[in-house]
Amino acid sequence: MTEDIFSDAHFMREAIREARKAADVDEIPIGCVIVQNSRIVARAHNLTETLNDATAHAEMQAITAASNHVGSKYLPDCILYVTLEPCLMCAGAIRWSQIGRVVFGCYDKKYGFARFATEIAHPKADISGGVLQDECSALLTEFFKAKRIN
Amino acid sequence: MTEDIFSDAHFMREAIREARKAADVDEIPIGCVIVQNSRIVARAHNLTETLNDATAHAEMQAITAASNHVGSKYLPDCILYVTLEPCLMCAGAIRWSQIGRVVFGCYDKKYGFARFATEIAHPKADISGGVLQDECSALLTEFFKAKRIN
Repeated sequence: MTEDIFSDAHFMREAIREARKAADVDEIPIGCVIVQNSRIVARAHNLTETLNDATAHAEMQAITAASNHVGSKYLPDCILYVTLEPCLMCAGAIRWSQIGRVVFGCYDKKYGFARFATEIAHPKADISGGVLQDECSALLTEFFKAKRIN
Repeated sequence: MTEDIFSDAHFMREAIREARKAADVDEIPIGCVIVQNSRIVARAHNLTETLNDATAHAEMQAITAASNHVGSKYLPDCILYVTLEPCLMCAGAIRWSQIGRVVFGCYDKKYGFARFATEIAHPKADISGGVLQDECSALLTEFFKAKRIN
């Protein structure tokens, strides 16, 4: 069966590709793409170690890149796909940029924004989780397992 | 009376200077400095309009700059001074960067992080607000008043 190239699963696979790039450079594998009119306008992966910057989460970089590409600090017609539930910082950035829809892969019970308050998200934002969550989660599990062995 | 150059008020005045630079380029006047061993290692002001980037808050830029200067993504021995209570995004960034102490000027009842959950801050972080709050607040009031007239 071929996958619909406009489906959430398709774009989440692109976010997973980004996450793999992070793992390749020994970064925690989290990836993100931002889509506008079914086209990817930004892609990024976690680079906190490489950039020595705790704010360099995949979503933060993708939002900055998408705003630059679109030419607006507001992105209401964009969809953000990210392999892990956004943290508070990223949820705040998603809110400020007014991204219309957020789709994440696996849940983050420790640092995910939803544990704090659901009102953190923009009232109009459509947020869903669990898309390809097993694949997204496996990336992280394998990364940390390898870390413990090495 | 001369002001102690290592006092919170002194560094908040430096943050206010940054906020004024924001107003000069028609940005909402919010400024930030980060101090390590009584020396300013980063200074920044809100640039969301100029950079077309909703994430370009003063604190975010200052944290990235300080990490770059210090050469570490963790800043436990740093103090962040900002003229307005940090939003959720910035509070998240402060947590990730493990900044040891935060001093803010005026309170932000609408977007300030404390309204959501005090546990957002790092458990070890020492956070205090209200330093030069009248001056910090006046900057914002004057900016928005001028906006309504023009």
